[in-house]
Amino acid sequence: MSQTLPSTTPASHFDACAERIVETARELAGKGWTPATSSNFSMRVDADHAAITVSGRDKGKLGRNDIMLVDLQGNAIGTDSRPSAETALHTQIYRRRPMVGAVLHTHSRAQSVASRLFAAEGAIHLQGWELQKAISGQDTHESVLEIPVFPNTQHMPELVDRVDAWLDAGKPLHAYLIDGHGIYTWGDDMAEARRHLEALEFLLDCELELGKLRTS
Amino acid sequence: MSQTLPSTTPASHFDACAERIVETARELAGKGWTPATSSNFSMRVDADHAAITVSGRDKGKLGRNDIMLVDLQGNAIGTDSRPSAETALHTQIYRRRPMVGAVLHTHSRAQSVASRLFAAEGAIHLQGWELQKAISGQDTHESVLEIPVFPNTQHMPELVDRVDAWLDAGKPLHAYLIDGHGIYTWGDDMAEARRHLEALEFLLDCELELGKLRTS
Amino acid sequence: MSQTLPSTTPASHFDACAERIVETARELAGKGWTPATSSNFSMRVDADHAAITVSGRDKGKLGRNDIMLVDLQGNAIGTDSRPSAETALHTQIYRRRPMVGAVLHTHSRAQSVASRLFAAEGAIHLQGWELQKAISGQDTHESVLEIPVFPNTQHMPELVDRVDAWLDAGKPLHAYLIDGHGIYTWGDDMAEARRHLEALEFLLDCELELGKLRTS
Amino acid sequence: MSQTLPSTTPASHFDACAERIVETARELAGKGWTPATSSNFSMRVDADHAAITVSGRDKGKLGRNDIMLVDLQGNAIGTDSRPSAETALHTQIYRRRPMVGAVLHTHSRAQSVASRLFAAEGAIHLQGWELQKAISGQDTHESVLEIPVFPNTQHMPELVDRVDAWLDAGKPLHAYLIDGHGIYTWGDDMAEARRHLEALEFLLDCELELGKLRTS
Repeated sequence: MSQTLPSTTPASHFDACAERIVETARELAGKGWTPATSSNFSMRVDADHAAITVSGRDKGKLGRNDIMLVDLQGNAIGTDSRPSAETALHTQIYRRRPMVGAVLHTHSRAQSVASRLFAAEGAIHLQGWELQKAISGQDTHESVLEIPVFPNTQHMPELVDRVDAWLDAGKPLHAYLIDGHGIYTWGDDMAEARRHLEALEFLLDCELELGKLRTS
Repeated sequence: MSQTLPSTTPASHFDACAERIVETARELAGKGWTPATSSNFSMRVDADHAAITVSGRDKGKLGRNDIMLVDLQGNAIGTDSRPSAETALHTQIYRRRPMVGAVLHTHSRAQSVASRLFAAEGAIHLQGWELQKAISGQDTHESVLEIPVFPNTQHMPELVDRVDAWLDAGKPLHAYLIDGHGIYTWGDDMAEARRHLEALEFLLDCELELGKLRTS
Repeated sequence: MSQTLPSTTPASHFDACAERIVETARELAGKGWTPATSSNFSMRVDADHAAITVSGRDKGKLGRNDIMLVDLQGNAIGTDSRPSAETALHTQIYRRRPMVGAVLHTHSRAQSVASRLFAAEGAIHLQGWELQKAISGQDTHESVLEIPVFPNTQHMPELVDRVDAWLDAGKPLHAYLIDGHGIYTWGDDMAEARRHLEALEFLLDCELELGKLRTS
Repeated sequence: MSQTLPSTTPASHFDACAERIVETARELAGKGWTPATSSNFSMRVDADHAAITVSGRDKGKLGRNDIMLVDLQGNAIGTDSRPSAETALHTQIYRRRPMVGAVLHTHSRAQSVASRLFAAEGAIHLQGWELQKAISGQDTHESVLEIPVFPNTQHMPELVDRVDAWLDAGKPLHAYLIDGHGIYTWGDDMAEARRHLEALEFLLDCELELGKLRTS
């Protein structure tokens, strides 16, 4: 990709973001959370731009040329590559949360199954797990961590609207699931986004295991 | 294997296919989808020939001499090696689908268990999973993806007949399971065949997990 | 960390402990038992000191500077680093069990789920498993191995009191679970502590699997 | 270990067996089938001797000095090392089956859980799985493969008697489980023994998964 960066975006910063995304994508692919070229990852480059994975590549085998620049309306900048159809969900978070530095979307088995199981309720409520404290701002296992489950759609603006409605209602939002699809989560930097993703994967997986045992 | 290739088949093309099959077999063995020397893999070499794994080898330790040439009637070409008993199922797909470039057959736990569970119904119907879109031609999670489950037999012509009957009826066929046995899937090239296999493994695994939770 | 060791603690011994903790942390992180920077590990340095992991680091990526010295009241020695909030649970074991050389605390899925499932009963009773013999002092699968499950709390002294009460009652204690949280176990040296941890993880995991099958 | 071999046993053959056992132990430990120093492995050296793992070592970190020579009555030959308490179960198979070249005993989760679940029935009956054909002499998924489950005991002669009684009754025996403990299987050479072990692990695991789904 011959990437032509806007003059206000230092190339070196884009490069550092691209490198970090590639490294993260390989690690998450190694965990089996990005089956069959699914999933997408991004980092904020500056106030108006983000670096994001190009659509449809095998996330275990990404190179730096598989990362592209977009503005926060989701337009490709300086490249003919097509950004992921779900770019709008990444840029929405960067627009609404100025401190967010990285957004991760994966498709693990636990994420997908939990989203189906709790779709009718519209949310999963996590309580009583020490690892809830891995989510920034949570300081006890006694609080309830609510993760909404939005209906899936191939029409991205519908999903953007649902996330906007949740945020506009002033409800806490650390992550959300899409029914039959996967999870979105984020953090101030890539390390925090990864910690959130790892903790949520663990919590969802535990909740499913407990469900098999409690109701049997 | 001293392989004597037909004059119309460039040796270099057979070699490239053999190398790709060996690489794929190692990766799939690493996922645990080829237990106890099971599974077989092939690639189309030209309009009339395919390269396929020799019977009974450990799929995690294949070398290029473990790949042989067959014609599309399943006859060994230029070698005394014995092709897999299931070669007929590979060549059938190449004969009936001229665009298909690779066929994969594996035996994961999810594939085997799903085949037993849905054998009486004769098919698995997948719906509501975003990852259905990883199958070529599927563009929404809302459609139903039907994967037939055929009864197992040690007599290959019976299986060939069942697959022919399904195709002759004009029904879509992206993959099929054999009861207690495993999955067959394919693609225009090896990358597509692997994406189909990975997506189907994930979908079957999710469906089984959901089954444990929904009915409990 | 510029660590100033007390004059009675040979620096070389602290270094050897730190190196062993780092190696162990990497191996346990590789098994997925330390999600999202959770878990902590320690080794006894001498009669009055222990080496322990600094709070909040990714356990798969520890270096020797992520290990600090504490006295057995849990005070940091010769460093400004903050020891884990759970340091008191490590030093309690070293104080009460003079032979103990290593304490391990992890958060695997099986440990977390088992702790939730058996919290109401207050203990898990393991019986009939050959691997119970991997716990020092156990010489038959016929005995009952009791692992208490203590309620979780963010106030460490409460947990310390519960462990003290158990020990003061003279009951055997090889390990304990904290509800929704994870396991603590130990051994005379790191090899024994790891063998105990590996055996308990296996036993809890088997017990959960059996629970899914027996009651269904 | 300064091993003094009997004059009729070429040292080079013992060395080759020891090397193969070490390699196999590492691979099986990597699969998680040898938790907490459990499991033991052997190979026939000649008509009257076998090489076997020394008791109590971590199977993922064996060296050639962790393998010792025994005669087929289970006596250590030319070494002060203590053979595994379960050596008698290995040598029994070599005595009664002159063609057997390797015996493997592991403790996977599926093996342990299946043994508990089917202990009351005294056997597991596998039918309808294509992978049954990976067991030598099995040529169709339609036959029933019977794996006895013997009660566990810390007194080895009782187990030896149970295996003898089974064999004396002329019943086929490809492997056996011990309740709460693990599996024993074997083959004419190490490759066949490993293929049997891998196939049985897969079949037991599938059977358990199917059990969770069928009865729920």
